[in-house]
Amino acid sequence: MQSGASGLAAAVNEARLWESLMDMARIGAIPGDGVNRACLTALDRQARRELIARAERAGAAVSVDPIGNLFLRREGSAPSLAPVLTGSHMDTQPNGGRFDGIYGVMAGLEVLAALHETGTQTKRPIEVVAWTNEEGGRFAPGCMGSMSYAGLKTPEDFFLVTDPEGVTFAAALAEHRAAEADLTQRPLGGKPFAYVEAHIEQGPRLEAADLDIGVVTGIQGSRWFTVTLRGETAHAGTAPLGLRKDAVQDAVRAIAALNALMHDPPDVLRFTVGRIEVHPNTSNSVADFVRFTIDFRHPDEGVLRARGDAVAGIVQAAVRDCTVEVEERFTAMPVEFAPMVVDAVERAAAASALGHMRLPSGAFHDAQFLVPVCPTGMIFVPCRKGISHNPAEYSTPAQLAAGTRVLAAAVAELANG
Amino acid sequence: MQSGASGLAAAVNEARLWESLMDMARIGAIPGDGVNRACLTALDRQARRELIARAERAGAAVSVDPIGNLFLRREGSAPSLAPVLTGSHMDTQPNGGRFDGIYGVMAGLEVLAALHETGTQTKRPIEVVAWTNEEGGRFAPGCMGSMSYAGLKTPEDFFLVTDPEGVTFAAALAEHRAAEADLTQRPLGGKPFAYVEAHIEQGPRLEAADLDIGVVTGIQGSRWFTVTLRGETAHAGTAPLGLRKDAVQDAVRAIAALNALMHDPPDVLRFTVGRIEVHPNTSNSVADFVRFTIDFRHPDEGVLRARGDAVAGIVQAAVRDCTVEVEERFTAMPVEFAPMVVDAVERAAAASALGHMRLPSGAFHDAQFLVPVCPTGMIFVPCRKGISHNPAEYSTPAQLAAGTRVLAAAVAELANG
Repeated sequence: MQSGASGLAAAVNEARLWESLMDMARIGAIPGDGVNRACLTALDRQARRELIARAERAGAAVSVDPIGNLFLRREGSAPSLAPVLTGSHMDTQPNGGRFDGIYGVMAGLEVLAALHETGTQTKRPIEVVAWTNEEGGRFAPGCMGSMSYAGLKTPEDFFLVTDPEGVTFAAALAEHRAAEADLTQRPLGGKPFAYVEAHIEQGPRLEAADLDIGVVTGIQGSRWFTVTLRGETAHAGTAPLGLRKDAVQDAVRAIAALNALMHDPPDVLRFTVGRIEVHPNTSNSVADFVRFTIDFRHPDEGVLRARGDAVAGIVQAAVRDCTVEVEERFTAMPVEFAPMVVDAVERAAAASALGHMRLPSGAFHDAQFLVPVCPTGMIFVPCRKGISHNPAEYSTPAQLAAGTRVLAAAVAELANG
Repeated sequence: MQSGASGLAAAVNEARLWESLMDMARIGAIPGDGVNRACLTALDRQARRELIARAERAGAAVSVDPIGNLFLRREGSAPSLAPVLTGSHMDTQPNGGRFDGIYGVMAGLEVLAALHETGTQTKRPIEVVAWTNEEGGRFAPGCMGSMSYAGLKTPEDFFLVTDPEGVTFAAALAEHRAAEADLTQRPLGGKPFAYVEAHIEQGPRLEAADLDIGVVTGIQGSRWFTVTLRGETAHAGTAPLGLRKDAVQDAVRAIAALNALMHDPPDVLRFTVGRIEVHPNTSNSVADFVRFTIDFRHPDEGVLRARGDAVAGIVQAAVRDCTVEVEERFTAMPVEFAPMVVDAVERAAAASALGHMRLPSGAFHDAQFLVPVCPTGMIFVPCRKGISHNPAEYSTPAQLAAGTRVLAAAVAELANG
């Protein structure tokens, strides 16, 4: 197996992988090396047809499930065994980059191609999946494909969701399925032996540590809040400050108090106020309304619960003149990946003599929803300055190939396990 | 003179004044008792025709100047003497009320009507003016009519300004002048003996003190700034706080520091952050851009200079991670009204046994630009909760009539001076 694994890693073709990514990046290209390729669109289907053609050249069998998740299967010597699943998503943010999501799919394809070229036979089948609508950029929320596969939701749960043009998810999916009616259909769901997803880090830690591989240990938990302050508008030139109910000033007080609550010297906690709406938002009127968001994440459930539960009280105590409402609009407790997969990834990185570290994922991924289904893990590769969801998103061909070699080795080990 | 003045005050007709204001409020009425009547529109011209008809019934002669300032003149016994000028403006904010501006014009008209009814002859002529575009809501900046009258600007200076539909001020003015070509034309400018403008307070002080009349001593100075912070966007779930360049956090630091700079226990200083723009303004991205406005006003030039000059340094010192630009986009030093007019207003209020106080104006007015031209003053009446630039703007018929009686007495005194 060891010589097989190193032969497989050697067969991972850096140039071919890069070209395949650049080919995909042309489908929905936007200025500045960006990509805008929303799910269930003609561009999405064009990219999928491109993927299918490459998969068939690598000897894989193609099938699609009722929510449009696309599978590329390489048979195992024991085809009745549960497959090892890898993959990610092909849709992008509206102002997205060339690597988020699509890298995990093309890395999986490259693994299939390397297996094909080297004639490597694994015991278990290997499947590469492209999950439908991970980003949620066209239809919110994201991860509809992986959530439906995992049985956490049904496709019908999302049918009434509309895109910004008013098209329902049901209509877009029906059109999409009609356009792919020639593909083999498969039922929703499954019970893989393991799931491992390759992805760019979307954060700066690997680059800062000058490492090649992130061995992802889990996904940190999140609590998202919306704070709404209602005061009274007044003329900026006349209203004495002592008589004002200034929503901007109360927002500043609330954010300052939250900064104190979220103080975290080890810098593991993530706290972001990223969105602020002000009304009437004119320079010479006191604001009577401010709404701001809180995005709070932590890998430790205890911290997430304790500080998250304190948010409403801290905000209420900080606000002086306005009425305030604090709404928690999303909660996800941390998930931990399975030691079987995490260890396989770590062994693969070590075997290829790549610098690696264990770290939790700060961002969401489809992998999160596979955790209840089967042993799950992820592989991160560095991306420049941690930039993602932006045309400037970039990883080098060598970084992307290194991650794919680790993926190939980990998948092959799991598929023989 | 005393019996003449009290007869004149008695002739000020509260019901007629209120009806005339309510008639005007129907021209451009919007829901909730508001008015949206932009300058140089068909609605504006309809309101002006209504005013002209009433003025002619009160025996006044009508004329317009090249920027559309409309004058209603009641001749004096010495017609060659400089006139006493009163008035205000007829345009409103887009979501405006029924009293801001139009009250000063209709109060002036009511004075003409009272003079007419009582057959009162003054030595000097009395002119009521409706200034063009005080609000700046359609064409920015405001006070174009009064600035041009005062010779601080020419109408041509504003010709290239466009409204939100792309219409130039030149085109709108040409259309307007063509529609009023039947009116007597007069040259721009003049040298009145005095100018006195009646206006709602647009602040809460008279109501809070339960007084009828504000004897306005001047207009406080203003310094307006724009602060622009440029950081770096990042994923809210992945970017460690220590590596961020978060423009929202730096804006909070800057505003907190400005609050300290602007601390003013007597509560005379006005400091407002009313407008905040955030980019990309999404809940799960660190903001790479924040721009906020500072509106700082004070009646004392020394305070205005000292604290205004400190703004840029305080902001720069407070900001931690972003680059920052502080631009001063408007400066107006405080103006003081002429004792001759201020005293006349105060005497008129006292003679009518109305509760009154001296106070500076927090808001801008056309009167500001008349200060270099002639002795100038203003009369304020209370408005409910200080609300203005809003459909909820309200003063009672009795409050409005009281201000008009003071205006009548002050104008008559000045016109015989």
